[in-house]
Amino acid sequence: MSSTPNTEQILARLADTLESRLPQNGGDPNASYTAKLLAKGPDAFLKKIGEEATELVMAAKDNDRDKIVYETADLWFHTLVALAHYNVRPEDILNELARREGVSGLEEKAKRGA
Amino acid sequence: MSSTPNTEQILARLADTLESRLPQNGGDPNASYTAKLLAKGPDAFLKKIGEEATELVMAAKDNDRDKIVYETADLWFHTLVALAHYNVRPEDILNELARREGVSGLEEKAKRGA
Amino acid sequence: MSSTPNTEQILARLADTLESRLPQNGGDPNASYTAKLLAKGPDAFLKKIGEEATELVMAAKDNDRDKIVYETADLWFHTLVALAHYNVRPEDILNELARREGVSGLEEKAKRGA
Amino acid sequence: MSSTPNTEQILARLADTLESRLPQNGGDPNASYTAKLLAKGPDAFLKKIGEEATELVMAAKDNDRDKIVYETADLWFHTLVALAHYNVRPEDILNELARREGVSGLEEKAKRGA
Repeated sequence: MSSTPNTEQILARLADTLESRLPQNGGDPNASYTAKLLAKGPDAFLKKIGEEATELVMAAKDNDRDKIVYETADLWFHTLVALAHYNVRPEDILNELARREGVSGLEEKAKRGA
Repeated sequence: MSSTPNTEQILARLADTLESRLPQNGGDPNASYTAKLLAKGPDAFLKKIGEEATELVMAAKDNDRDKIVYETADLWFHTLVALAHYNVRPEDILNELARREGVSGLEEKAKRGA
Repeated sequence: MSSTPNTEQILARLADTLESRLPQNGGDPNASYTAKLLAKGPDAFLKKIGEEATELVMAAKDNDRDKIVYETADLWFHTLVALAHYNVRPEDILNELARREGVSGLEEKAKRGA
Repeated sequence: MSSTPNTEQILARLADTLESRLPQNGGDPNASYTAKLLAKGPDAFLKKIGEEATELVMAAKDNDRDKIVYETADLWFHTLVALAHYNVRPEDILNELARREGVSGLEEKAKRGA
């Protein structure tokens, strides 16, 4: 009943929004930061991934919890912008993570058995 | 009814697993890659964030969709390892992303109104 | 006799210039990009190292020789800015590189002897 | 009189050595770390640039002078490996840095004049 989104749907919703910002979907570079970034092409948002990764590392070295949350959000956001450009959904990443966790669980069971 | 996890619960489940790998929670460096990484301390997993960000950028430059999925999963995974160490939940990041999207939505509405 | 600097003295001369841009040496943030960067403190120029490293990687993936020169110069420049702040001379880095080459040369001789 | 190299010739000498490690110049992947890295192709050494940049940033955040020297040497070394592959000399980078310093000097003179 609630209109507030489920925490867990946030990535999917955000991906929908980012896709709507793609040039081919009518994203307006003058109305949105993301549309502007996507219009500039890959180097613009890929560079942000390297930049935000470094900023997250620095926030972590500072042991600054609030900055860690902020910079991780920045890093994930720009990753999602790149995924939108390359037509990859966050669900694809989550499924890959789940697949690995399953494999890793089996490996660890095997180790414990050995 | 199904016992397979919802796509959307994957981050929360993975975070639970990673937390159980923390040294203070009994994570065994000999039984798990993550426990080993967490036992080594921040520089070990923060370095991986820089490394995986670069690998994602290279996969993107190659326009290789499968590698993009693989490297993004690697990047997010090592981000989640760092979050576990700093006692931050992926839900904190998702809420920050949702908060921004709300703010940004309002800004764009304001622009359109202007 | 010539007043044009020897190619090889460029790093030392550039380091001298960068040191003069340090706040404690009277560097004026309004007159120089470097003085401004140094006045902002470590996070400002360290972030540039991550950013420029990513831009070099992208230029290399593009196989664009001119961009590679340009981005490597950017990366080395911002490294030198950081070195100035931490009171490290480029000669220290060159000596470390020479030391390693000596060690590595010996190792390879040993291998060839074996 | 001394046969020890001038500090300032180190980059040029190192570049000569790295070029001799290129596959097309007979570099032997079994005898040298660099030859192995060059034989693997760009992604192998470009990834190291991202990794070493992050390690330098962490050493700087630790304010650890010795680690800063060590990690900068690592970063410059892997940059030089990349330059060897792309047929760029360190002198090209130094000349670009000198060119900029000249331009920047003129800009600052102009500002002071204004």
